[in-house]
Amino acid sequence: MYGPLIGVIGAGACSEEVAQLAREVGREIARRGAVLLCGGLGGVMAAAARGAKDAGGITLGILPGPGIQDANPYIDIPVATNMGQARNAIIVQTAQALIAVAGGYGTLSEMALALKIGKTVVALRPQFEIVGVQRVDTAKDAVAIVLNMLDTC
Amino acid sequence: MYGPLIGVIGAGACSEEVAQLAREVGREIARRGAVLLCGGLGGVMAAAARGAKDAGGITLGILPGPGIQDANPYIDIPVATNMGQARNAIIVQTAQALIAVAGGYGTLSEMALALKIGKTVVALRPQFEIVGVQRVDTAKDAVAIVLNMLDTC
Amino acid sequence: MYGPLIGVIGAGACSEEVAQLAREVGREIARRGAVLLCGGLGGVMAAAARGAKDAGGITLGILPGPGIQDANPYIDIPVATNMGQARNAIIVQTAQALIAVAGGYGTLSEMALALKIGKTVVALRPQFEIVGVQRVDTAKDAVAIVLNMLDTC
Amino acid sequence: MYGPLIGVIGAGACSEEVAQLAREVGREIARRGAVLLCGGLGGVMAAAARGAKDAGGITLGILPGPGIQDANPYIDIPVATNMGQARNAIIVQTAQALIAVAGGYGTLSEMALALKIGKTVVALRPQFEIVGVQRVDTAKDAVAIVLNMLDTC
Repeated sequence: MYGPLIGVIGAGACSEEVAQLAREVGREIARRGAVLLCGGLGGVMAAAARGAKDAGGITLGILPGPGIQDANPYIDIPVATNMGQARNAIIVQTAQALIAVAGGYGTLSEMALALKIGKTVVALRPQFEIVGVQRVDTAKDAVAIVLNMLDTC
Repeated sequence: MYGPLIGVIGAGACSEEVAQLAREVGREIARRGAVLLCGGLGGVMAAAARGAKDAGGITLGILPGPGIQDANPYIDIPVATNMGQARNAIIVQTAQALIAVAGGYGTLSEMALALKIGKTVVALRPQFEIVGVQRVDTAKDAVAIVLNMLDTC
Repeated sequence: MYGPLIGVIGAGACSEEVAQLAREVGREIARRGAVLLCGGLGGVMAAAARGAKDAGGITLGILPGPGIQDANPYIDIPVATNMGQARNAIIVQTAQALIAVAGGYGTLSEMALALKIGKTVVALRPQFEIVGVQRVDTAKDAVAIVLNMLDTC
Repeated sequence: MYGPLIGVIGAGACSEEVAQLAREVGREIARRGAVLLCGGLGGVMAAAARGAKDAGGITLGILPGPGIQDANPYIDIPVATNMGQARNAIIVQTAQALIAVAGGYGTLSEMALALKIGKTVVALRPQFEIVGVQRVDTAKDAVAIVLNMLDTC
């Protein structure tokens, strides 16, 4: 298996500022030797995947639709679930820990599913304050915390 | 098709007080001629289904596990998804509107998925305050609001 | 729980002759007090559900698409999975036994999934000869065999 | 995206002879620059993934269970669906073409699902003769046929 699988979750459309942050998260994941997992579409998902590719990393995109051609251009390995939002449960099941970057209701559903099955979730610029999600301020901190957590499991 | 499908969501274990409230929600759904849909297990799910049966209603349980024998005794029609928490997406897709009764992370994931696809969600005794979820105080109000909403769609 | 859940599987478009046979299967299921489960769409699914309603039975339709409005008019309880062909696995998991009426590749996938998890499958006018599927000649025999099987389990 | 995604399907337990054949299929997929996709478990799945790794390829395993630790040791990127046999639909949706190596009912379900959505399926030593599945005799032929098909699409 390649490095640990870190999920990055966030909205399919986002501000330039949030995209920069997501890209930095992606870069940091790749620098640390982890694999980036996301929902494979645009916004935070594309920015994070782009960041991982900037730093020579590997990206996995688990898509809601029926075809792998929907993946953003930074996805190395697309998975077409054809299951709509139920694919969120597969992202959460597969990721060893998750980093949320801003995000709306879809992201909230993933945070909740992750907490339900006991996975670590950290959040940058969260829209929702959810007990159990650790708020962090920088991409570097976000990645360091989730990787440390995996090391000690 | 039988009456409108109203989803009742909540935790698989709950206090007696929350169970009474869920049972009243179930009764009111049945009295108004709607079908109760839930996750088919214990706690709020069993209490709501029991309430619907008290009032002569019909109950549908969409289960996370592989077998229909896991359904609580108040479920008329069980569906075994064998998909774990991904079954939450099926509950939300099938229900025409949802009523949350208290609830933990699983319920939060369902509220978020419902809001993501534009379904009405009302909440009794919510653990989480989520923008877009209407808080209500009584079972009667909860059912009246969601049925009125369906009538005007 | 209402009576045993018997799945009827077959293509979404079929000849009038196959539809008559499916309708007779649906009628017989209802006459024997079982609940008819199908994929909720047209062809064999609609004919079987219609037959069950002719005889005063109850029908459950597990749909591939995102909305319950896709159900045929003979479905009492629709479930919208939004999972395309993956809903076939839910049909097979939920049905206590299955009756195939003619059918194409979709039906073949359901027969295979059912055999994989050890469920009884009988077939009327099968397109494919699959080891483990019992071929039967009449609707009455099909229903009698699957209900006898459940009684002795 | 890395090279084309070729699915290899087959049983979770197999003879040494079938394993050798699956391994040769995996090797050939990697030699031709494609990514091997399989169900991530043992038997044909492990042998094919091992073959791909022998030849320096990349392997994706889409698992039925809840955890990535169930993947065989030759899987580079595991996906944990927690959806049992419904994961077969995700394999078929994701693969651009499929090669079956022997196989039982699970493999039959995947062949049927693939044909249903119009994907190319070739089979080595098929247990079932299904119209629409092209029978081939060597690993080299199997891979050449599916890659040629993708080139001309």
